[in-house]
Amino acid sequence: MDKTANRQGRRIVLTKMLADNPGQLFSLGHFCTLFGVAKSTLSEDFEAVRQALAAFGLGRLETVAGAAGGVRLVPVKTDAATHDLLAGLAEKLATPDRIIPGGFLYMSDILFSPRLMAQVGEVFLTSFAAAAPDHIMTVETKGIPLAFATARAFNLPLVTVRRGSRVTEGTAVSINYVTGSSRRIQTMSLPKRAVPAGARVLIIDDFMKAGGTARGLMDLALEVGATVAGIGVLVATAEPAAKLVDSFLPLLILREVDEHNKKTDIRPAL
Amino acid sequence: MDKTANRQGRRIVLTKMLADNPGQLFSLGHFCTLFGVAKSTLSEDFEAVRQALAAFGLGRLETVAGAAGGVRLVPVKTDAATHDLLAGLAEKLATPDRIIPGGFLYMSDILFSPRLMAQVGEVFLTSFAAAAPDHIMTVETKGIPLAFATARAFNLPLVTVRRGSRVTEGTAVSINYVTGSSRRIQTMSLPKRAVPAGARVLIIDDFMKAGGTARGLMDLALEVGATVAGIGVLVATAEPAAKLVDSFLPLLILREVDEHNKKTDIRPAL
Repeated sequence: MDKTANRQGRRIVLTKMLADNPGQLFSLGHFCTLFGVAKSTLSEDFEAVRQALAAFGLGRLETVAGAAGGVRLVPVKTDAATHDLLAGLAEKLATPDRIIPGGFLYMSDILFSPRLMAQVGEVFLTSFAAAAPDHIMTVETKGIPLAFATARAFNLPLVTVRRGSRVTEGTAVSINYVTGSSRRIQTMSLPKRAVPAGARVLIIDDFMKAGGTARGLMDLALEVGATVAGIGVLVATAEPAAKLVDSFLPLLILREVDEHNKKTDIRPAL
Repeated sequence: MDKTANRQGRRIVLTKMLADNPGQLFSLGHFCTLFGVAKSTLSEDFEAVRQALAAFGLGRLETVAGAAGGVRLVPVKTDAATHDLLAGLAEKLATPDRIIPGGFLYMSDILFSPRLMAQVGEVFLTSFAAAAPDHIMTVETKGIPLAFATARAFNLPLVTVRRGSRVTEGTAVSINYVTGSSRRIQTMSLPKRAVPAGARVLIIDDFMKAGGTARGLMDLALEVGATVAGIGVLVATAEPAAKLVDSFLPLLILREVDEHNKKTDIRPAL
């Protein structure tokens, strides 16, 4: 393996490494050793990468000064890209063949699409970066890929709350909660070691109707001594308008699923 | 937004787009329009990207000829990188604080780590590329991030089998299966529309003991008219040596969890 690289090659390799590890801080020394070049040379490389990515809306290269400093690529999405993404998702979700008896929408193919969820994760990063979470939290099952992609964009650990409680994860904290729409009592639990006290969690889920699940996740976070930095959901229903949580960010609003006429009204919220 | 880019800028942008969309075929025309340059110029750019990434073991740039052709970045991992990754995982998993009463290992933090799972996904891509799957399949819950990362590396849809059956996913195919170790009968189900007949599925899971779950997933795949292109698991136990599936690829072998002496013997299998 030929590890010498000219300027062209270096910038390609730098870009690939930064893109593969969004949010991760690389020390300049790391790259100096890798390429055998001086810091001043690398600084020019980073400036070129920063400008090229910024010009095409492909993320923000941040420089952190000081001994513990370095560079990281924060994969923020532009407003235009966010708008295109959400308009495309709304269109996909509105096709008549997604309506399932009972007025549900089939969303699993979208929720398990790596390419789409990677992009939605970057939208949540862009929206919640200022809230400075240190953990992403979700509940099984369908929200996991979305929350995982969000955690990847933030470079943060993901914590997955289980329904019921499982023996293979050690001591767990459980709470009962009432699902907002069907009024059933359910249990969910969190391995105690997954979230340290004082953590700031960002709650991410795929769908919100009355908000009972999100409320339960909030309560569980508070129970382990964490604070809630925000709540983001991919789709929220317009009704009921009053949810069980006060503040949350939906990306799409589902206004109606008309099973009889096979029409779905779903719109971008950003 | 300034969309004109010199050669340097172009190669940075190309690398970022290819890295963000592993396995996705981009037509040359797409980039010609984006940058306003001729195909011959782009071909030189791709050759530079290909060489730089190959020199640093960061994936293989493939050119597909013909009218429907283009370029794609296949994020294959080198043997050396795979070895380092698995040795690191084995070391992490062997720490005494992971042993949970009952002889279980706490693995959730690793299974939900975006950075680690992205790399494990690339190992499965490298191992199973020749099997040419067209869907990745897993079962909820803890294997989802790993299977999702594998699906991302392959640029394939992920299909998640549910335990029990859920109303919000339409017509489902269910099977009963016997868990190999505890001999309990369980149900799992798959939305009928998630896997077309004739599909080639690669089954990915986090853990295998007797292989009952993998056997159930295989049977479910066959039930919907799919064929099984392979089975990959992150950790398989050494005992029982005879599993309920004939052929599978484990990345780590768990030989013993000695609860009394707080010692875990786990080793890379590749």
